Amino acid sequence: MQSQEIRLKKRPVGIPESDDFEIVQTQLPEATDGEIVVENVSLTVDPYMRGRMIDRKSYTPPFQIGETLTGGAIGRVTKSNSPDISVGEYVESHFGWREGFVAKASAVKTLGNLQAPASSYLGVLGMPGMTAYVGLLGVGEFKEGDVVFVSGAAGAVGSAVGQIAKIKGGTAIGSAGGEDKVRHLTEDLGFDHAFDYRKGHLEKQIQEGAPDGIDIYFDNVGGDHLQAALNCMRPNGRIPLCGAISQYNATAPVPGPNNLTIAIGMGLTLKGFIVSNYNDMRADFDREMTQWVTSGKLKYRETIFDGLENMPQAFVGLFDGTNTGKMIVNLQ
Amino acid sequence: MQSQEIRLKKRPVGIPESDDFEIVQTQLPEATDGEIVVENVSLTVDPYMRGRMIDRKSYTPPFQIGETLTGGAIGRVTKSNSPDISVGEYVESHFGWREGFVAKASAVKTLGNLQAPASSYLGVLGMPGMTAYVGLLGVGEFKEGDVVFVSGAAGAVGSAVGQIAKIKGGTAIGSAGGEDKVRHLTEDLGFDHAFDYRKGHLEKQIQEGAPDGIDIYFDNVGGDHLQAALNCMRPNGRIPLCGAISQYNATAPVPGPNNLTIAIGMGLTLKGFIVSNYNDMRADFDREMTQWVTSGKLKYRETIFDGLENMPQAFVGLFDGTNTGKMIVNLQ
Repeated sequence: MQSQEIRLKKRPVGIPESDDFEIVQTQLPEATDGEIVVENVSLTVDPYMRGRMIDRKSYTPPFQIGETLTGGAIGRVTKSNSPDISVGEYVESHFGWREGFVAKASAVKTLGNLQAPASSYLGVLGMPGMTAYVGLLGVGEFKEGDVVFVSGAAGAVGSAVGQIAKIKGGTAIGSAGGEDKVRHLTEDLGFDHAFDYRKGHLEKQIQEGAPDGIDIYFDNVGGDHLQAALNCMRPNGRIPLCGAISQYNATAPVPGPNNLTIAIGMGLTLKGFIVSNYNDMRADFDREMTQWVTSGKLKYRETIFDGLENMPQAFVGLFDGTNTGKMIVNLQ
Repeated sequence: MQSQEIRLKKRPVGIPESDDFEIVQTQLPEATDGEIVVENVSLTVDPYMRGRMIDRKSYTPPFQIGETLTGGAIGRVTKSNSPDISVGEYVESHFGWREGFVAKASAVKTLGNLQAPASSYLGVLGMPGMTAYVGLLGVGEFKEGDVVFVSGAAGAVGSAVGQIAKIKGGTAIGSAGGEDKVRHLTEDLGFDHAFDYRKGHLEKQIQEGAPDGIDIYFDNVGGDHLQAALNCMRPNGRIPLCGAISQYNATAPVPGPNNLTIAIGMGLTLKGFIVSNYNDMRADFDREMTQWVTSGKLKYRETIFDGLENMPQAFVGLFDGTNTGKMIVNLQ
């Protein structure tokens, strides 16, 4: 079977460009014993991938030049040499940025019958949804009544964070870029307060929604947002550090918040997290989130590109505000 | 009874000066029912007091101009109208920066018979010792075998952190200012590695002692130290934020670490803490620490000033490297 794949041609400097990637035609090997052949249906691009394009030490090693990129993918099994998986089943894998692949059956997660569109298993029912769930409830130690502020609130993770906070009895405040997204947060998703971070003073805008301060700041952005949120925290507040999209494309080190010492007197916790360390929450996530999504209690949006050749463009679009909700590339 | 007291005359700008304080003669009121009269024996000055001299929101409200300052004190009861405390007993209180006071018996902590010098109950057996114990074992979630790096390692908190790490089966690395302090850490206190932060590259000096990275960075300093330590952390490392002496005297906001995003990919936790939130560890602390100190297993040093009139000078000395270990002002 032929498969097109996308490779990292050179490390992006600043904002990534389509030219940093190349598309390559490959011939997949034959599936041997215990292996399956999968045709991808739906692929994802995520901001964290930008971090992996930098050559530096991290929990997950950086992407290498000339290597086919990886990322979340939902695919359909077209051939199986494994007793564990049948042809026609859908599987979740990390073999994204390609049309198809051959792998051990143990290297993918079977999804059984899909209860929602394939792409939702890359978003609200996949890694971003799990990130929101784990970050808010596990890392953030959310308790009923908590006031939660989330940045990047119109994104796949952020919009789930705010809605989970509401479902669990908290107050949700969100920041996003642009009036349309802000309106979406309050009118469609039920956020208590939302604002356009491009307009007005960040700290004042947070305080408008949380005059008595916030218990949890779910940080997707870093930079100015983190600094402003630190000034609004209640004692013993928690700050799950999930992303720093404001800094991923910086070509020089960006100074951190100049008020980090507030964390000492206020007893604040800033906690970066790796979703895979919270697998003990997976069953609760699958159960609760599937119920919320299929019942319409928790809503999500997607921005969809079609065709593998448009994947670099979809990735670049993550950094210029093209997407609302999860950025998806559908292949079929 | 007459008592001299020290008040904040004006808010320090930058490094505090003796002139920011004034000494005032006062007449104590008569002790009423349930109250005791205490003559202070040993007083403490601590870096955290500098933070409370700034007019800003914090867990503990700032000191007010013209107000008698407060701080840790060990005193002897000279009169008691309470059935709970007898004349001659020693008590720990927060009514420092003064020769004596009248208070409800419930406002002080009775120490019973002292098992060590009075001043040690302000240091290794008091708040700084408890801060080290709680910060390392509770906040830092120390486990046997952990590699611990502590800044300000020759100070009251830092020297206890390193020694507790050693007693509990870890590796201790410390930074301090000056060769004498560095030698003290390795030769007297049993640190595995220590260095002079004023000489050489911080990150390289940490790596010399911890080629495979550190599990816990106990931060007494903030600034460059925090930034360097972030680059040396192992996955899932913990950073108890205890102090930021490098920034207390800054007259303008100091940028935070420019590499805070490392915390995301590495799953790091930065946690400011308030010792009083960890009172459930108090009994263990009293038992273990008293045993370690009286048996000589855990050592401490003090820098002692005599007389209340020298207290501002002792406080100012905290910021110019005058002290090794706890800074104490003895009154008797």
